[in-house]
Amino acid sequence: MTVATQSIDQLCINAIRFLAIDGVEKAKSGHPGLPMGAAPMAYTLWDKFMRFNPKNPNWVNRDRFVLSAGHGSMLQYALMYLAGFDSVSLDDLKEFRQWKSKTPGHPENFVTPGVEVTTGPLGQGIANGVGLALAEAHLAARFNKPDATLFDHYTYVIMGDGCNMEGISGEAASIAGHWGLGKLIALYDDNHISIDGSTDVAFTEDVSARFEAYGWHVLHVEDGNTDTDAIAKAIEEAKAVTDKPTMIKVTTIIGYGSPNKGNTAGVHGAALGESEIELTRKELDWNYGPFEVPEDALSHFRKAVDRGASAEAEWNQTMATYKTKYADKAAELERLLSGELPANWADCLPTATPDVAGLATRKHSQATLNAIAPVLDELVGGSADLTHSNLTEIKVSGDFQKGAYENRNVHFGVREHAMGAICNAIALHGTNLIPYGATFLIFSDYMRNSIRLSALSETRVIWVMTHDSIALGEDGPTHQPIEQVASLRAIPNLYVYRPADVNETSGAYKVAVESKKTPTLLALTRQNLPNLEGSSIEKAEKGGYILSDSEGTPDIILIGTGSEVQLCVETATALRSEGKNVRVVSMPCVDRFEEQDAAYQESVLPASVSKRVAVEAGCTMSWYKYVGFEGAVVGVDTFGASAPGGIIMKEYGFTVENVLATAKKVLG
Amino acid sequence: MTVATQSIDQLCINAIRFLAIDGVEKAKSGHPGLPMGAAPMAYTLWDKFMRFNPKNPNWVNRDRFVLSAGHGSMLQYALMYLAGFDSVSLDDLKEFRQWKSKTPGHPENFVTPGVEVTTGPLGQGIANGVGLALAEAHLAARFNKPDATLFDHYTYVIMGDGCNMEGISGEAASIAGHWGLGKLIALYDDNHISIDGSTDVAFTEDVSARFEAYGWHVLHVEDGNTDTDAIAKAIEEAKAVTDKPTMIKVTTIIGYGSPNKGNTAGVHGAALGESEIELTRKELDWNYGPFEVPEDALSHFRKAVDRGASAEAEWNQTMATYKTKYADKAAELERLLSGELPANWADCLPTATPDVAGLATRKHSQATLNAIAPVLDELVGGSADLTHSNLTEIKVSGDFQKGAYENRNVHFGVREHAMGAICNAIALHGTNLIPYGATFLIFSDYMRNSIRLSALSETRVIWVMTHDSIALGEDGPTHQPIEQVASLRAIPNLYVYRPADVNETSGAYKVAVESKKTPTLLALTRQNLPNLEGSSIEKAEKGGYILSDSEGTPDIILIGTGSEVQLCVETATALRSEGKNVRVVSMPCVDRFEEQDAAYQESVLPASVSKRVAVEAGCTMSWYKYVGFEGAVVGVDTFGASAPGGIIMKEYGFTVENVLATAKKVLG
Repeated sequence: MTVATQSIDQLCINAIRFLAIDGVEKAKSGHPGLPMGAAPMAYTLWDKFMRFNPKNPNWVNRDRFVLSAGHGSMLQYALMYLAGFDSVSLDDLKEFRQWKSKTPGHPENFVTPGVEVTTGPLGQGIANGVGLALAEAHLAARFNKPDATLFDHYTYVIMGDGCNMEGISGEAASIAGHWGLGKLIALYDDNHISIDGSTDVAFTEDVSARFEAYGWHVLHVEDGNTDTDAIAKAIEEAKAVTDKPTMIKVTTIIGYGSPNKGNTAGVHGAALGESEIELTRKELDWNYGPFEVPEDALSHFRKAVDRGASAEAEWNQTMATYKTKYADKAAELERLLSGELPANWADCLPTATPDVAGLATRKHSQATLNAIAPVLDELVGGSADLTHSNLTEIKVSGDFQKGAYENRNVHFGVREHAMGAICNAIALHGTNLIPYGATFLIFSDYMRNSIRLSALSETRVIWVMTHDSIALGEDGPTHQPIEQVASLRAIPNLYVYRPADVNETSGAYKVAVESKKTPTLLALTRQNLPNLEGSSIEKAEKGGYILSDSEGTPDIILIGTGSEVQLCVETATALRSEGKNVRVVSMPCVDRFEEQDAAYQESVLPASVSKRVAVEAGCTMSWYKYVGFEGAVVGVDTFGASAPGGIIMKEYGFTVENVLATAKKVLG
Repeated sequence: MTVATQSIDQLCINAIRFLAIDGVEKAKSGHPGLPMGAAPMAYTLWDKFMRFNPKNPNWVNRDRFVLSAGHGSMLQYALMYLAGFDSVSLDDLKEFRQWKSKTPGHPENFVTPGVEVTTGPLGQGIANGVGLALAEAHLAARFNKPDATLFDHYTYVIMGDGCNMEGISGEAASIAGHWGLGKLIALYDDNHISIDGSTDVAFTEDVSARFEAYGWHVLHVEDGNTDTDAIAKAIEEAKAVTDKPTMIKVTTIIGYGSPNKGNTAGVHGAALGESEIELTRKELDWNYGPFEVPEDALSHFRKAVDRGASAEAEWNQTMATYKTKYADKAAELERLLSGELPANWADCLPTATPDVAGLATRKHSQATLNAIAPVLDELVGGSADLTHSNLTEIKVSGDFQKGAYENRNVHFGVREHAMGAICNAIALHGTNLIPYGATFLIFSDYMRNSIRLSALSETRVIWVMTHDSIALGEDGPTHQPIEQVASLRAIPNLYVYRPADVNETSGAYKVAVESKKTPTLLALTRQNLPNLEGSSIEKAEKGGYILSDSEGTPDIILIGTGSEVQLCVETATALRSEGKNVRVVSMPCVDRFEEQDAAYQESVLPASVSKRVAVEAGCTMSWYKYVGFEGAVVGVDTFGASAPGGIIMKEYGFTVENVLATAKKVLG
């Protein structure tokens, strides 16, 4: 091994750069440019500032790190290896982007312990950062005492030009500025290169001025390539401002050190190639082989292990004191951190029998949220400016606002996409908070990637989506979901519930709260629905069940969801009066039904009964699996229209007459 | 009728207010607040500035008006009625939000002539405004001559707080500032109320400073309720600045004039109610009955008809001169405006036989775009910062940039959502430009509402989406589409093409260019595919067709799309070698196949053949309609993984072995 001729800081920074270069080169795939340019800021942050315990990535008061520019994943993996995380070994770095490796193409929290959130889709990470900072602020306000600070971690984000171009980042930055989240510090890797080349081709706004307009504290490090003192000073200054989030623009050169590819889009997303790597070695005076880390650098970096152990031990001491002084709060916190729900928590869920006048399922949702909020202190959330339409306000708490972070009603503003990423991050804060986010179902389209990421990254988020069909009426086709329910069902690992009454709504919430690795989306009506004979929380949990049946083998099965279950019930009555055996299946959650064992599924939908009609005020696509060639679907495969909801439902065929006629056609 | 005691301007403004109040009151549904507050700016704009011809809403050089805050639709309908548009009569105002009326809940271009774009989903309209201004700038640069200005219209947008909170508006404003679109003027109705109440709860950023950071010219009218002179002065100043878009913040009171509901969220989205209307009449000194417009106001407003006729006549004169002086350019323009495509334009589409080495369909798309670009000058578009991955650059043109608006390659930056709305508006500019917008298929999730609006508003937009499956490889699950193709198919009036080779790619483009009221989305591979025996442009146009067949009735039908068609072909070969009759159906566009007549559909997929296997590297949901209970789908219903594409495809079962095994199981 060659003797180091560089300062220890320089050695560490170059170690990051070359691990990234080597990992990408070996994979022949990946993004070396960002790690090479951002290594100085990342090293400074991790070595001089970040409090974390590599040996316990779940330590609750760790500083959170988010690589919003997730394509630069080798930066994060290199940092994690160098700092001593068990989840990323040198061998793992050599397996970058390979089948089943711990070092996938983009950081994935569910694969690599120590990765906080899943990034890659640009802009999500900075919005996640806002959610993590929100969680910290909330828990600090709830639990900290003047003589015992349990929560005071920072959330650090590295974001790039791409993140800053995405609308979601603007939404998130605006609300973070409003909330004054002082422990959120974003380092903007200002390398003025994106995939299309110089940012001059499409991105010439004044980013710093924009963040100032959002109410952020803004700093600039002019030479982010070599001036680590300036980076450190900026982070110090950022920490000193406690009532505003800080954005530090750190101007760098993408692919720093590569003589021919540095400062070009060519180094963004492709391996450097052997000869350019050689030239880069010379340029950076790097005398080590591929994946070789100088011992000095490694041992310096690994001081993070002792530092982390001490920090956690100190925190444990604080917690011990806290327990003696504030036993009740400590118990509350320990229950929360344990992930255990209060015993019999679900007893609070509303139920009703058919004699109780039915309401819109959004109203059942409102009642349910307000029933569980006092029992589950971990419930935190709100709406994207539709609080009184989505009915998501919880009455036992006030508004989460600057200076009132202990409150649990969050006003996200008309920012669905950021709301999505913020909720995801609250769930991934590791403290078992249960976030919920609400909007009109149609605007799930505005936040679809965040909903997808909630599923991919295995979060417990509750998406409360109201106004779930053409029945919403006058607002018309821009506001009427058609394809939304089906296309949300198509997202893996997402429970899409479309409950039909109070019992099913409660069942959906029960599943939502108890499913720790699967988010749940509720599609709820604007209009009133009757409470059904035969529904229950337990049945709804199964996803699909027999709501009512005739004696003997059914001649036909009617399958409905949400507002259309009652149509099935009425149609069944009409058919039975004509002597037919009719089964009505309520299917509030297809995804859950699919998870039941084959025997249960067969008991509900016997293969021998091939005459089936599915009824749902939405696109038909997802129902053919259950009705086959001999069945039929009553649905909507065109856009909606503006008119009173009752008229639209009639015009679109959601009448007993039409369902009956369809059923008779199927019966032949 | 009472004699008017107000100035004519005041009378006109109050006429707008009360038509909005009365329309909403009669419907018992709608949004009176915005029209009441924004009436002064809207009146000033329409009466003193806007050039349009109510009797010919399609006059090509009309100023474009976009109500980005589309919920305030009664504002637009009132303006249109008062200005003399034939599409909105007084009776139509009385039918606001009713079944089949010309005055639906939100403005819909496909229902009401004179409405330029469909708004309602917040933020879309301001981004549409950017697209309309882009179209104007482009056509002006291409056709204007020093002595003959054919294109010099303005695009005016009224946007609200909600629009400004949405990320899409930030994206659009950033790129508009970059492009320096001087003829774009946005009036921001700063009424500091959104649905959740005061904007203080979630929106306290400095919007003006933010727009300045984007490079906009920013003005402020402090009293937008009464100071029409200040509004007029601001619009004058906006027009005087020709190298930047202008944002005029107009501070107003929502529901101005309503003593109890003005300046509250209560007036945003609900009828005022009879007694409050009476109080508002008193407050505004309005002595007219419901839907009654004082003659003075109507006759003043209706001067727009003569003004518009003169403006168009003048333009026609300019055009006549232009034709004599610049016959070639005039012919080019007339062809464009006629909507006729050049004769035999499709002859340029690439085709190939199987002996030609296959390429990725994104490369076929690149070749096709470059084949048609010289033939179709109307093709304008680009990528959201993935130009060299999506392969969307056209070589016959340079980059559309400030000072180079004649060019056709647009760099949207990493702003998928704004790209979507900008493309929609280019298509809706009414000049038959053909916009295309590109990104990775996975990021269709970032722009899904814009894609939906392209379908709803009946545009001819081409969405070029590459990297269409898990086969993209190492980037992993955040970048690998699973549910995207199926869920895009679920959008009504959208052709989703997933072509399998060069011929099918050309077929998809032929459909895309010739479908004037239906957008087309192409899902294209990253990886190479062989050119198929039996494919053709004509067959691809049908959406699904018999690619290869055995003699006699098929024992089984294999249905594939895109990269999986070859798997079906190879599986068929294996099955045939075992004596089975196998039909292979290539189904590049399910939507188009569904449009074919029943006889054609039956000829491809005979009801008598119920043994079917569909193969697609995406979620299975959309295929059960075609395989029924006896068939099977080889697809992916979980998230992808990070690894080389070939390995992933194998691990996920996209092998001849697996498809063969599945087919045999189906055959029984």
